[in-house]
Amino acid sequence: MGQKLLHDFLIEEHVKNSLKEDIGFGDITTDFLYNEDDKITALLNTREDTVVCGIDVLMAVYRILSDKVIVTVNHKDGEFVAKGTTIARIEGPARAVLTGERTALNYMQRMSGIATETRKYQEAIKPYCASVTDTRKNTPGFRMFEKYAVMTGGARLHRFNLCDCAMIKDNHIKHAGSLTNAVEQIKKNLSHAHKIEVECDTFEQVKEAVGCGCDIIMLDNMPVPEMKKCVDFIDHRAIVEASGNVTINTINEIASTGVDVISTSAIVARAKVIDLGLDIA
Amino acid sequence: MGQKLLHDFLIEEHVKNSLKEDIGFGDITTDFLYNEDDKITALLNTREDTVVCGIDVLMAVYRILSDKVIVTVNHKDGEFVAKGTTIARIEGPARAVLTGERTALNYMQRMSGIATETRKYQEAIKPYCASVTDTRKNTPGFRMFEKYAVMTGGARLHRFNLCDCAMIKDNHIKHAGSLTNAVEQIKKNLSHAHKIEVECDTFEQVKEAVGCGCDIIMLDNMPVPEMKKCVDFIDHRAIVEASGNVTINTINEIASTGVDVISTSAIVARAKVIDLGLDIA
Amino acid sequence: MGQKLLHDFLIEEHVKNSLKEDIGFGDITTDFLYNEDDKITALLNTREDTVVCGIDVLMAVYRILSDKVIVTVNHKDGEFVAKGTTIARIEGPARAVLTGERTALNYMQRMSGIATETRKYQEAIKPYCASVTDTRKNTPGFRMFEKYAVMTGGARLHRFNLCDCAMIKDNHIKHAGSLTNAVEQIKKNLSHAHKIEVECDTFEQVKEAVGCGCDIIMLDNMPVPEMKKCVDFIDHRAIVEASGNVTINTINEIASTGVDVISTSAIVARAKVIDLGLDIA
Amino acid sequence: MGQKLLHDFLIEEHVKNSLKEDIGFGDITTDFLYNEDDKITALLNTREDTVVCGIDVLMAVYRILSDKVIVTVNHKDGEFVAKGTTIARIEGPARAVLTGERTALNYMQRMSGIATETRKYQEAIKPYCASVTDTRKNTPGFRMFEKYAVMTGGARLHRFNLCDCAMIKDNHIKHAGSLTNAVEQIKKNLSHAHKIEVECDTFEQVKEAVGCGCDIIMLDNMPVPEMKKCVDFIDHRAIVEASGNVTINTINEIASTGVDVISTSAIVARAKVIDLGLDIA
Amino acid sequence: MGQKLLHDFLIEEHVKNSLKEDIGFGDITTDFLYNEDDKITALLNTREDTVVCGIDVLMAVYRILSDKVIVTVNHKDGEFVAKGTTIARIEGPARAVLTGERTALNYMQRMSGIATETRKYQEAIKPYCASVTDTRKNTPGFRMFEKYAVMTGGARLHRFNLCDCAMIKDNHIKHAGSLTNAVEQIKKNLSHAHKIEVECDTFEQVKEAVGCGCDIIMLDNMPVPEMKKCVDFIDHRAIVEASGNVTINTINEIASTGVDVISTSAIVARAKVIDLGLDIA
Amino acid sequence: MGQKLLHDFLIEEHVKNSLKEDIGFGDITTDFLYNEDDKITALLNTREDTVVCGIDVLMAVYRILSDKVIVTVNHKDGEFVAKGTTIARIEGPARAVLTGERTALNYMQRMSGIATETRKYQEAIKPYCASVTDTRKNTPGFRMFEKYAVMTGGARLHRFNLCDCAMIKDNHIKHAGSLTNAVEQIKKNLSHAHKIEVECDTFEQVKEAVGCGCDIIMLDNMPVPEMKKCVDFIDHRAIVEASGNVTINTINEIASTGVDVISTSAIVARAKVIDLGLDIA
Repeated sequence: MGQKLLHDFLIEEHVKNSLKEDIGFGDITTDFLYNEDDKITALLNTREDTVVCGIDVLMAVYRILSDKVIVTVNHKDGEFVAKGTTIARIEGPARAVLTGERTALNYMQRMSGIATETRKYQEAIKPYCASVTDTRKNTPGFRMFEKYAVMTGGARLHRFNLCDCAMIKDNHIKHAGSLTNAVEQIKKNLSHAHKIEVECDTFEQVKEAVGCGCDIIMLDNMPVPEMKKCVDFIDHRAIVEASGNVTINTINEIASTGVDVISTSAIVARAKVIDLGLDIA
Repeated sequence: MGQKLLHDFLIEEHVKNSLKEDIGFGDITTDFLYNEDDKITALLNTREDTVVCGIDVLMAVYRILSDKVIVTVNHKDGEFVAKGTTIARIEGPARAVLTGERTALNYMQRMSGIATETRKYQEAIKPYCASVTDTRKNTPGFRMFEKYAVMTGGARLHRFNLCDCAMIKDNHIKHAGSLTNAVEQIKKNLSHAHKIEVECDTFEQVKEAVGCGCDIIMLDNMPVPEMKKCVDFIDHRAIVEASGNVTINTINEIASTGVDVISTSAIVARAKVIDLGLDIA
Repeated sequence: MGQKLLHDFLIEEHVKNSLKEDIGFGDITTDFLYNEDDKITALLNTREDTVVCGIDVLMAVYRILSDKVIVTVNHKDGEFVAKGTTIARIEGPARAVLTGERTALNYMQRMSGIATETRKYQEAIKPYCASVTDTRKNTPGFRMFEKYAVMTGGARLHRFNLCDCAMIKDNHIKHAGSLTNAVEQIKKNLSHAHKIEVECDTFEQVKEAVGCGCDIIMLDNMPVPEMKKCVDFIDHRAIVEASGNVTINTINEIASTGVDVISTSAIVARAKVIDLGLDIA
Repeated sequence: MGQKLLHDFLIEEHVKNSLKEDIGFGDITTDFLYNEDDKITALLNTREDTVVCGIDVLMAVYRILSDKVIVTVNHKDGEFVAKGTTIARIEGPARAVLTGERTALNYMQRMSGIATETRKYQEAIKPYCASVTDTRKNTPGFRMFEKYAVMTGGARLHRFNLCDCAMIKDNHIKHAGSLTNAVEQIKKNLSHAHKIEVECDTFEQVKEAVGCGCDIIMLDNMPVPEMKKCVDFIDHRAIVEASGNVTINTINEIASTGVDVISTSAIVARAKVIDLGLDIA
Repeated sequence: MGQKLLHDFLIEEHVKNSLKEDIGFGDITTDFLYNEDDKITALLNTREDTVVCGIDVLMAVYRILSDKVIVTVNHKDGEFVAKGTTIARIEGPARAVLTGERTALNYMQRMSGIATETRKYQEAIKPYCASVTDTRKNTPGFRMFEKYAVMTGGARLHRFNLCDCAMIKDNHIKHAGSLTNAVEQIKKNLSHAHKIEVECDTFEQVKEAVGCGCDIIMLDNMPVPEMKKCVDFIDHRAIVEASGNVTINTINEIASTGVDVISTSAIVARAKVIDLGLDIA
Repeated sequence: MGQKLLHDFLIEEHVKNSLKEDIGFGDITTDFLYNEDDKITALLNTREDTVVCGIDVLMAVYRILSDKVIVTVNHKDGEFVAKGTTIARIEGPARAVLTGERTALNYMQRMSGIATETRKYQEAIKPYCASVTDTRKNTPGFRMFEKYAVMTGGARLHRFNLCDCAMIKDNHIKHAGSLTNAVEQIKKNLSHAHKIEVECDTFEQVKEAVGCGCDIIMLDNMPVPEMKKCVDFIDHRAIVEASGNVTINTINEIASTGVDVISTSAIVARAKVIDLGLDIA
């Protein structure tokens, strides 16, 4: 259990389902071509520069398929490796090594892609104190791996789901009559262990949000100068999150406003699937 | 059950897990802001041109959350709609409508993105008889939705998993001693109901593959002229699949060689997540 | 879906497992004594004063067993009812009504017990602004029902689990070298959407905790006068949670110190199982 | 597999779900404070006198979380230990040890509480041949642990669920027309491998029950002298079970009547949650 | 819920898994040949005389696949119907009707076969008071359907599994030192709600078994005259079960000895799979 | 992982469910008679000639129940052994060995029966090139074991489920207007990786099927001379499958027609359950 937050027993449950999805009633190519005793050595190579992510998933795939497969890891999650690098070496029964190939790669290609994309965003704002953070725009059923990849890429995580932070949006405000009403109403029930975040579109709303004591103010789709004005006004009385139109080109300017956190779905939704491959040695 | 291949009881099982992932112990914002009897109407609008995909998932999300939500569908899976179109109207208890929002969108944004990307590829080769097809490079646990989206986009599906078609690759050939040996060995065990596909890198291999009677010949990463030569040689004695370096720019030329099928992971792996949103009416 | 936080599809999943646990291969008494067409009417009566809790579970039990059972609810979750009150009326096929009896009661007896106990604690501190809150000392696999019952009883919830609020305890502090170090180290990784709570045993620790900007300060097992001193010192710079030795006798005095929240496992762990019964009309 | 009836593979399945419930997306405190290589030693101490129960669950928790945790057991299930005793020692990666703490304790505290309470009841009737037995008034989803704890405390188990013993109650009798009719009707279908128990409120009913050859006669809520009269009349022609108003104060007198079994939900429903703690060494 | 012991929610869970097993990623024949709106009417006909069994499973299959399929039942579980009879009529969307065909038939063919075989055995001993009963030699994962079919065929059920009746066999006796020791040892722990059965090979053992008060004596593989001798000796002091070498030819003679129950795995293990078919009207 | 197609992690999941089905709340006989430390040695003997099948399931049963059980295998899957042979030796804790007995046997008896029956059919046609193959007429939830046993018996497998081969039947043809229409319509959507099989009842249909280029032609219930005529006409332009009225007596004559594959449900549905037993050494 080297990884943060991800637990092996949860990885295994997920991987078993993915293996079932890919294996069906059996790998008719591999099982009909290789004997039980045939051995093989495969190298997990990357065909692109990448931040490595998903080594524990790789190991789970092979632990599930056979206790005779040995995975030797050259590069750990979070390491940046250049195109052509051998990330890990997988030795053991040919049937297990080949049957697990696609499933292992399908995880790692997506996870490494997200980690790589995330790092780009985080590095683009290095001079500033801001952190990149993700959103809940995940692939259904795959969130724990996407969140983990975002963390591996060096960003912070936003809330995990609907129960760990209250988030007040414009339609909530309309429903409650005012931003202040909405905050008050949530506060009546909310756990003292949870924060309240409010989405603000205007400086007026920001003022109101500061006034009613919410924990996080999200500046949603604001022009950079207005963002700056809001940050200055808030003056550390709440955490400031910038959101909307965040690209690798705009993020530096956004960070320069002094916001604390910049959230974007792009690090997950637009991340490239990294070209990894298993080459038989 | 309007959709092909996808079954509602399987969608529901998947969606329930995704809802659990996103809801955790409960939606603390919505449940603390809205009463049980509050009603809301939301419009599912697209902020981009898209092929619609995932309507049955949308309906499953709300069927699971409440039997009081009514979903009215304006555009069915497979329809192309322009930016700004209202795809569906969702009316009912505010708690259910809002709690399901993110999960429903997370499915539809990805599925519509894949359908849209797939259609682009398929339309790029319209004059030719070739079909675009997908690969097994899917998001683990999400394959049935990605396969369905590919089909919705107008492409054909490749094999579903490791048990419905034998696929002989270069390392298999090395192991067996020759391509012919590998095919023979598979044939000894294979069901008569399943096909054999052989990956060929060279014209020589193609000749051998035709000679030993395999069903599908994949031309892997071949230059277009060599591909053409292979297609002519094969002359309908096997189905011809082109693979490797398939982009929206190269696919037309590849199709012009007369191949039957062009497989590419790009229609899934590089598809954009479409920007869909739920707007409160 | 009348209840807050609890969702019917999650209740149903839990109840199905409980019914399997209690039914095994079938209810040999009921099925051998009653015919398919026999009808019965049962009244859910309470033999003790209680806060009602678990109506949605009751309904789920019977919805799962038969679509012919009609449950009529006289008293909703959160209502206080006196000994002898008929809480609900259950009519339908005798087999379903009787087979579901024990399972339905097993949920409601525990949930109503917790709600009732919780209300006592909350009412004991009515004059003060403090809220009672629960802990994570739950029955494994039953937390969502226990948390819901606590909320029904009028208390606030503490964190749901290990991922929605960081909680620094004495051994963490020892490990990190100092309270401040521990807070700093958490802050390096923590989501901006999550709070940090620090357990403090002494006034010195409280001062340090305020100094490093944590969100919640837990006064652990402190004598009331020291608690008061800490509350005054903190002066709203952090939420103050009192913990330890909280009983129905001590809670009022604790609340009088001005703490914001008083957490206790007693409302769950020492709650009575309320004596509810199904009487055949 | 030292325990009776409980199987490790079933414990593991239950514990995995409980760990998921408590971990969610990850233990943000522990994982952000401790490194992968940090080691810790914790002592499982009891702050009260208790019968130990749940050691196999404790071991399952840590086996699931990490194969590097070593649990050394000083006191086995069923042993009585005094306040202050160290029951087990847990050494290994700090992350695993701390993340599993609450879940392990939540099981053991309840199980030990039930075992302790049960032993009190069983010892209160030592001079007599009667056995204490439990009921089906369990926490939904937790029955196998509660039944096991009752057995660990020295009592016998009543039926496990609705399929292993027929139990005729007053409303069954009314429905069938008479006690004899009800017994006859059950006998027509019942497996020869299963017993019939009949709830009797009066001496008249007891006579009828003996007459029609049922296996167990439950004397429900009878005054002690009437109970005695029934026991004498039955004279070993059926097993006699006393039920109703069983407390630690009344049980001795009930046992003195010569009943074979005394059933009570109190040993589960009113058992204290024992105060166990994990102290870092 | 017309059936005894079987519950619809349990049938549904089992059927969903079987449908997944048979559908995989989708019914490529049906979905590609029929449109969403195509309707079909199918008749469930039997090509052999049979006792009908499994109607609730049939209905579950179609309830799961589509709420638009209407199943009209002509013959209920337990009815004997002649070759050529239409058991049920299934109308609705062609896709659902055809996709569910094989799964529905696979259940009903086996269940009807067992019910039919069971009835033959039970009728062969009509003049005697004995009941046929089954064993635990079931198809793994399919027991509840096999037990139900046995009951539908008119036999009684033996114990459901390892927890509802103790069964002492020869190796247990050897281990305990004597039959009496074995019975004593079980009695020390056994629930008063459960019976003890002892397998006896000889008259001597039978005498010992009667002496120590066990509930059921199994005469295992005894010649008929010895069986008779044992029955006479036991003289209703225990239930007598005959086992071993039970065939449709021998069962009448066995029953003539006066045994109470005759157990045989043949009614399940050697039952014919009945030839049922779905004919499109 | 010695077996083809079957994977240990899938066997384990299935076996765990079967063990739960058979164990319920615990093996009350074994656990109350044997101590934790009692050891036992059992021999898996066959009381009939059989092809061995299911060794990996046997090993899974005991791996799940206890890591202290050692299974020594004398005869592997696919070996023919005579009545009286010891197939495997099982040593370890008596509780685990005995509790797993029935479940292990229930799998192996059925699997070995199918393998044995299949081999008879396959050997009956030895002089011919034809292969025996199975159907989808499986026990619900048990297909992977039945398919594996068929393969162990020496036959080929037919399609696994509804998604790996299209199968056009008479009602499909009626719906589509003609056999050719049906084939065309399927081809429009079908994956290039999947085959089309057409059921033909007449020579006319066979001609049409050859004409429209389907992959497999099933001769359904044809008299042998007509079958021969069809085989000659088809002349290797499609794979020929014979189906209907296949028995051990008719199969040789069917094979003599030159068909490629002979499918029959009899090898599964009419296979004997082999009499295997666990004898305590």
